[in-house]
Amino acid sequence: MKYSLMSKEELKELMDSLSCEYNSYKNSGISLDLSRGKPNKDQLDLSNELLISEPTEEYYLDEKGFDCRNYGLGDGTSEMKRIFSEIFNIPEKNILVGGNSSLNMMFDNIARLMLRGTCGHEPWVKQGTVKFICPAPGYDRHFSVLETLGIELITVDMLSDGPDMDAVEKLAADPLVKGLICVPKYSNPTGVTFSETCVRRLSSMKAAPDFRIIWDNAYGIHDFTSTPDELPDVFKISREYGNEDRFLYFSSTSKITFPGGGIAMAAASDANIAEMRAYMSMQTIGFDKLNQLRHAKYIKNKENATKIMARHAEILKPRFDLCKKILHEGLDGLGIADWYDPNGGYFVSLNVMDGCAKRVWTLMKECGVAMTGAGATYPYKHDPRDRNLRLAPTYSTLEDLETTLHILVCCVKLAAIEKML
Amino acid sequence: MKYSLMSKEELKELMDSLSCEYNSYKNSGISLDLSRGKPNKDQLDLSNELLISEPTEEYYLDEKGFDCRNYGLGDGTSEMKRIFSEIFNIPEKNILVGGNSSLNMMFDNIARLMLRGTCGHEPWVKQGTVKFICPAPGYDRHFSVLETLGIELITVDMLSDGPDMDAVEKLAADPLVKGLICVPKYSNPTGVTFSETCVRRLSSMKAAPDFRIIWDNAYGIHDFTSTPDELPDVFKISREYGNEDRFLYFSSTSKITFPGGGIAMAAASDANIAEMRAYMSMQTIGFDKLNQLRHAKYIKNKENATKIMARHAEILKPRFDLCKKILHEGLDGLGIADWYDPNGGYFVSLNVMDGCAKRVWTLMKECGVAMTGAGATYPYKHDPRDRNLRLAPTYSTLEDLETTLHILVCCVKLAAIEKML
Repeated sequence: MKYSLMSKEELKELMDSLSCEYNSYKNSGISLDLSRGKPNKDQLDLSNELLISEPTEEYYLDEKGFDCRNYGLGDGTSEMKRIFSEIFNIPEKNILVGGNSSLNMMFDNIARLMLRGTCGHEPWVKQGTVKFICPAPGYDRHFSVLETLGIELITVDMLSDGPDMDAVEKLAADPLVKGLICVPKYSNPTGVTFSETCVRRLSSMKAAPDFRIIWDNAYGIHDFTSTPDELPDVFKISREYGNEDRFLYFSSTSKITFPGGGIAMAAASDANIAEMRAYMSMQTIGFDKLNQLRHAKYIKNKENATKIMARHAEILKPRFDLCKKILHEGLDGLGIADWYDPNGGYFVSLNVMDGCAKRVWTLMKECGVAMTGAGATYPYKHDPRDRNLRLAPTYSTLEDLETTLHILVCCVKLAAIEKML
Repeated sequence: MKYSLMSKEELKELMDSLSCEYNSYKNSGISLDLSRGKPNKDQLDLSNELLISEPTEEYYLDEKGFDCRNYGLGDGTSEMKRIFSEIFNIPEKNILVGGNSSLNMMFDNIARLMLRGTCGHEPWVKQGTVKFICPAPGYDRHFSVLETLGIELITVDMLSDGPDMDAVEKLAADPLVKGLICVPKYSNPTGVTFSETCVRRLSSMKAAPDFRIIWDNAYGIHDFTSTPDELPDVFKISREYGNEDRFLYFSSTSKITFPGGGIAMAAASDANIAEMRAYMSMQTIGFDKLNQLRHAKYIKNKENATKIMARHAEILKPRFDLCKKILHEGLDGLGIADWYDPNGGYFVSLNVMDGCAKRVWTLMKECGVAMTGAGATYPYKHDPRDRNLRLAPTYSTLEDLETTLHILVCCVKLAAIEKML
């Protein structure tokens, strides 16, 4: 029954029993963590083959015989370009291979646009206070990159098929609005994938000529159900509207192999990639090519990458199934929470009753469960409705996750009733 | 005999015999390269042990048991911090460990100063057109980093004990002069090491409060003679003058292990390092820690690093000895060239007769020898006296190097006589 249809007495009664349940959790002295959006040990072990290396030519010469121990190949080995090209269906010539962090590549590219501008336009720092559209809930580290670089953040709602495009289109008309940052597939944290309509509107809308969309395809092949989402081909679509230059595409192997030692990539139109390559060639003589070789040897091709991801899915699916089960069983029909069951990615985004997210976070904390800070998924950590919580179910054991989710359900209910009474 | 004391006839006669020698080189169809400032294959092979890795815990857990395959340890593993700390005699707390490129760390830090400023001062981009002092001949990539980031370059002469400090002190008084960039030990390309007097003047001179010296100690332990230079302790000295914040220190293992897969570091005062760490933590979740582990396992400590460098020296010394021998035999006493015989580093910097560097470069090229572009060692590639050439003797075989140097001596003489006649 919806809580809103319950009488004050019924709510009070329910609160007594929930408080009792809550106190039993609290007194059990648990210490759990639902904040760690990273692979667990079993997932890391999947790629241990990547740790194999010997002092022989096959571990330092690339397929063209280039000695990867030395300087050179500033934009990456051809093997690694080909693998990313296959996985993301982007021509090799439009791909740059970097270090281990795609976040770092995004950061560097936004810094570049600030200091040097793009395609003949003034550097952003010279145009005034530039702004970025930030669909939220979104990825906290995206927002902190923009803030660090001096960009103003504008929140728009993330809907079930991408950002609220009516709002985005209105904002993009401002010439000082210079971009949008997003995770278009299995969005962090909502888990939604941008629809073709959304991608078409992003590609065709009016915007400044140096408006850039940071297309962080972090979870491009990170499916864990039999009905994976399909991300529309952003370069194909934007090319139709003559706006291929609008998108800067990033990804990495962080959650395919090792977050602490993977390979990142950037992709873009011919015009953008030429600028990016030129800038990168001033920034470094080259990234770690030996790690690129090891990765190429291990990942091999798209088919094998898909096989690796299927093994990750085997480990991750039970965790997300557990979220689905416990959240549905615990919260369905109460009218105090909603969420989306994702087909991939690393998170579940839970909206509790307005004004209750911080309270749920505190209740969880006092009970021994760490969660990502309420508000963290919004620009300036400000969730205007104080309702969103990011759940990261990948790192815990299944047992811990189950306990945590039961506690979460209890806290979500408690906070709602506290608010209503 | 000095060419300047020779008669026109004597010079003409000499020119005929030199032209004859030159043509014999030219007709021999050689193809040589004196431009590659990178280790040769024998040097790379020295560190092949670094390529050994197995899928066992010792290759992914750090000394504290942290799983380096995963996210975390944003400023580096403690092993690698300790090794850099020992090598450079800098406290671990003042060290950040990065990716594989110290150039990249310098680039990022200068970008940071541009966009965010430092120690409470306005971002450099908001202060006007900021300028850097560039001792030259210097490292071309330093200059291109500054240019890329929108900084104006001011050339000052590099003398035998560091930059021309009278000129530096005058320039630093301008509040828009925000820094100086240098390789203080075995300077690229002159091979000189800054004297204590120079370091004291750099530490004590009047300058803007946000003036920063990019102290690129690329060749800190890259000695190849029995009389190595000693670089004064910059943090100790600058602390005496209360200007410890003035120096941002960088280095890497690029020429200890592998240029294409080494480990870079930055070091600075407490105040600077806190800012650098905060910025870095927004830029990336962390650099490749697995490579840090492999490096720590291989390099072990300062003592072993010194042993590794002694093996490099065995390979490099004969090359630099050959330079010394052929240049002295060929050019001593002619009054048309001067150079410095370094005790370490990667280059020999040759000053030919004023107005002759480009001509020597062209003569070399037409004869089949590639050299670093004349002027490349100066800001904006403008060598005001057109006299400096950077020789990179490390990569060639000894045989090729010998041939190349004989050709070089011939071309230096030819160009001088052409100029005089």
